[in-house]
This record gives sequence, C-alpha cells and structure tokens, in this order.
Amino acid sequence: MAVYTHLGAEELAELIAEYDVGKLLSAKGIAEGVSNSNWLLETSGADGKATRFILTMYERRIELADLPFFLGLLDHLSAKGGPVPRTIHDRSGNAFRMLDGKAIALIEFLPGVSVGRPTAGQARAVGRALAGIHLASADFAGTRANDLVPKDWQELFDQCGENLGMIDADLPVAVQEHLPELLAHWPTNLPKATIHADLFPDNVLMLGDEVSGLIDFYFACTDMAAYDLAVTHAAWSFGGKNTVFRPEIGAAMIGGYEEIRPLSDAERSAMPLLAQGAAMRFVATRAFDWLDTPDDALVARKDPMDFVKRLRFYAEAGNAPFTAAAS
Amino acid sequence: MAVYTHLGAEELAELIAEYDVGKLLSAKGIAEGVSNSNWLLETSGADGKATRFILTMYERRIELADLPFFLGLLDHLSAKGGPVPRTIHDRSGNAFRMLDGKAIALIEFLPGVSVGRPTAGQARAVGRALAGIHLASADFAGTRANDLVPKDWQELFDQCGENLGMIDADLPVAVQEHLPELLAHWPTNLPKATIHADLFPDNVLMLGDEVSGLIDFYFACTDMAAYDLAVTHAAWSFGGKNTVFRPEIGAAMIGGYEEIRPLSDAERSAMPLLAQGAAMRFVATRAFDWLDTPDDALVARKDPMDFVKRLRFYAEAGNAPFTAAAS
Repeated sequence: MAVYTHLGAEELAELIAEYDVGKLLSAKGIAEGVSNSNWLLETSGADGKATRFILTMYERRIELADLPFFLGLLDHLSAKGGPVPRTIHDRSGNAFRMLDGKAIALIEFLPGVSVGRPTAGQARAVGRALAGIHLASADFAGTRANDLVPKDWQELFDQCGENLGMIDADLPVAVQEHLPELLAHWPTNLPKATIHADLFPDNVLMLGDEVSGLIDFYFACTDMAAYDLAVTHAAWSFGGKNTVFRPEIGAAMIGGYEEIRPLSDAERSAMPLLAQGAAMRFVATRAFDWLDTPDDALVARKDPMDFVKRLRFYAEAGNAPFTAAAS
Repeated sequence: MAVYTHLGAEELAELIAEYDVGKLLSAKGIAEGVSNSNWLLETSGADGKATRFILTMYERRIELADLPFFLGLLDHLSAKGGPVPRTIHDRSGNAFRMLDGKAIALIEFLPGVSVGRPTAGQARAVGRALAGIHLASADFAGTRANDLVPKDWQELFDQCGENLGMIDADLPVAVQEHLPELLAHWPTNLPKATIHADLFPDNVLMLGDEVSGLIDFYFACTDMAAYDLAVTHAAWSFGGKNTVFRPEIGAAMIGGYEEIRPLSDAERSAMPLLAQGAAMRFVATRAFDWLDTPDDALVARKDPMDFVKRLRFYAEAGNAPFTAAAS
C-alpha cells in the first residue's frame, strides 16, 4: 500500500493535457495496489463538469505486453454495461502512455467501498456480477494464459524450498498432502471465459447491497469460469479471522452466480477440487511473498496459513459449501 | 506516506453516521502524512449533495492535548474566509472523536494540487496567504508553545551525538559553526502570531496561481510571524536539487507577504538570522529522523544536507534574499 513514484503537480498537469478531460483540480496519491502507484485525480472535465479518475502507474510485475489485454477488457466489459471502470484514451487514442519509462493509464473513477465482513445480500450481488463478467467476456477477442496454474504453484513452492517450514511447520505438510492431487486431476475441459482470478473484497466496490465496481483486473486471464467462482468463494466466504467458513455467504454467492450463469453438472462436481486449487494458489503466492519480504518492511505480509485452513476445509467439506441458496 | 491503520467500510460507515454528512459513497486511503493516516471520503451529503472530506487519524507524534488548538485554529481561520479546511463537528459538537484509542477528525476537502517548482506568481500568492493567516489569527484565543526552538534543535543534535557525522562529515561542522550564534542571538521581542511553522509546498494546495488551501497545521504554534515567513522562504525558494537559491521566488514571496502585512524594521533586519534558524530547525529534525529510520524502511528519508546548504546560503547572503519584489 504505497505510492512508489512521486509525480509533481507540473508532471501531472502535463500528462492530463494529453487527454480531453479539462484541467487538473486535485491529485491525491492513494494507498492501494502493491504493484502499481495510484492517484485519485479530479479534472475540470471535457464538458466543464468536474470529473474524477484513477491514474495508475504500473511499477512492476505487470508485463507491458499484457496491458492491451487488461485495458481492452475494461473497455469491453464497461461498453457492455458491466460495473467495470472504462479506460480513458488519450488524444491519439492510446489506452496507455509511457512516463519516465513506466506505463500509465487513466481509468474511470467508480464510487463504492470495499466491505470487510460481507452480508449474504452482498455475496449474492458479487456472485451475480462475476457471472455477468463471464457472459459479457464471451465475445472479447483478447486472450491471456493464466500464469498461476498448478505447475506454477509447484514452482513457487520449489523456490521456497526448505524455508517453507519456517513460516509454519504445517505449511509443507499441507502442500505435500494436497498438491499432488491438484496436479494430477486439475480439470482441463470445463467452459472457459475471461476471468478476474483475484476477486477479493478489496477488488469489489459496493454501495449497500449493490456492486458499483469490479476493479484491479491485473490477474485477469483466459481460464475456467468455475475456477473464478471458486477463487471468489474462497476469498469471500470465511470469517472469524478469515478461517471459519460462513455457509450463508458461500451459498448466497453460488446462488447469485447461478441466477445469471447456471453451472453445468461437470462444473458443479469440480467445485470442491477447484476451490482447493484456489486456496493452494494463494498459499503459494503468499508463502513466496512472505519469504521474499523483509520482516521490517512496511508492506503488510499476508499469512499463507489463512489459506492452508481454507484448503483443508474444502478438502474435507465435499460439495456442501457450493449448494446455492435461493434468493 | 502510508495508511497505518486499516478501517473497513463497516467501521467507516459507523463513524460517518456520527456526523450529519449523509451516507458513505467512497473511501480511499491517501498517501499523505507521516504521523497520521488519511482517507479521502465521499458522502451523500447533509443536503443530498455528494461531498468530500478528509478523515484524519492521528497515529503518533501529536499530543491529544494539542488537538483542540490545531482544530480550533482551522475553524477560526476558515470562519474568517482563510483558505483553510474547516473541521466537521459530530452530532454532539465534538471536533474530534476517539476510534480504537486513536483520535480522528473529519476535515473539509479542498481542491488544488501541490506544486513542485513554484513560479514567482505562486510564491507571491503563498506569501499573501501566509500573511493573511498571521493577521486572521490575531484574535484566536488558543496558544501553543513552539516545541522546536533553538534549545530543542540543540537537544536533537545532542541525541544524534557522534552519529551526526555518519550522515555527512560536514553536518556537525555546520552545526558547530552556526548553532551557538542562533542560541545566543535568537530574537525574543518580534511580533508574535499563530504560525504554521511548516509551510512547505506539500502543505499548500494551488489552482494555477491561486492558493486554494493551506493544510497540515500540526506544527502550528504561537511564535514570531517573521520566523514563519523565514521557514516558508527557506522551504520554497530553492531549486536545482533544492539547494540553489531562486532569487525571483524569494523576492516574490516577501513581496506578497508585505502586500498584506508589511514587516517592521526589526523584523526585516532579523530575517537573515531567522532564515538560518529555519534552516537549522530542519537540519535538526531531518538529521534526527535520518538516524532514527532504518535504511530499508519504505518511508523516504529527507536529506538534512539540503538544509545545511540553505543554512550556509543564508549565513552568507545577508539581507539580499529578503528584498521584496514589486507585484
């Protein structure tokens, strides 16, 4: 949570002049994003009406070659009325520009706040919004391979090596216990879509029970729609220090999703495995980042053990957590 | 530059309900402040018109006992039409509340951006605004002693001890050379006011050549008005990696100040010494913070040597840098 790059008012004003958005009225660096810097800007607007934008500078992790996919996806989904910010193109039509060697994009500001402890009504709305994205992306031309599939998790654990047990003695045990099955039986024939792949509460803006924005599509890729639902289920359905399953949340989310895009039988029966995979994916990246982050860094490390507990929950619970609640 | 405390949407909404400002529409942690966390909030407004606020949580350094002074000053100055954000009082009339043991205040949002390399027109506007604050605070009832006067600088250097030379071998030399004179001849009989005492460009919001906001009054205190002008002069008038004096900026600032509040002869002749003191004050706190901040902390350390160079400049330049430019 930081702004990694300082941009002065003069630089921001020069940058804004490349867009048809009026003059700069305000700029605040915002404490969001771990691989990019973000500013909340206000300008006098193309039509004289003050307008807000998010200016994102891509600092690391993001491949420049992927930007047209990420930003094109925002434009595609928002054009279809999805609750997704559109990108503002510059006067030459570019979706992103380079500034000091870094890519920057100007993105629509959406209202809403991220919930901490969702209600069933909110989980249902998120399920609906996620299904809407999966349907709306069906005719999106872009594709991007998921670079966090089971073999990538394996690779991250291999890089952690012996140090994995230093995080928690139970961590390598859980990986050893569950990763082989995920590697062996990971589905390949379920329906694909353009998926968000990281739809935690932080990445959903809500106004009451309504989803006002889905944001931060920088893990978006072409992969199984049901896996995206499993990721979202794993990210939203646990309370009590993030490790106790909240059945009403999971059921509302599945219910909301199926209102818009019913799961096939094959998808439904794959959910327990997909959810274990979703949990393992976050165990892998969190464990890697944990070991990669100095103890005294100001970046808050995320505890991989939260997801070890979710992994074990999904491994034992069977299909029950994925039964839809009626609306 | 960070948000030190996580506040979820639910906590923020509960907090906002204590104020007559409508419902929460948006909340972004902003990357400003080193001793407090700040959020840019939007609410639906008391009258149904969406309104923005800054929510500040005081994390450290600020004495709770000083908050009524700081917040009362904002209210006093804004009531007089000064470009200062007013504080929003809660439904019981409190200017601040406690949340999880920390004080929080809801403060008016002001537009504008902080300039990086000011123009003479901007420096003049800042000089005028500063003088306006000094006049407007004349009937402010609050008082607060300046806790960064020469003996405090001395104490900070004493605490740095031998380590001072590890920052730069020239640092203890400059302190030894100039601090005794400042301690011996620091003026005591110049007109006092409520002063900002830290009016760097970061703490001034501008729209073009106009000052739209003076912010961050958390060093404000009762001290010599001319010292505040000296601090602001030292903070604004140097370019070229912050160490080369820009005479047109200094002259415009003094000119702007004197348009509103002419300096007395005694103030004018004290300016060279006050400016050396202003520079020494930032050498002292930056040196202390430099040694107090781990090398790999994400907080950017500020180089005390920038102000050693300004100190030497002021010690040699006499009265010339304080000659007002006509508007």
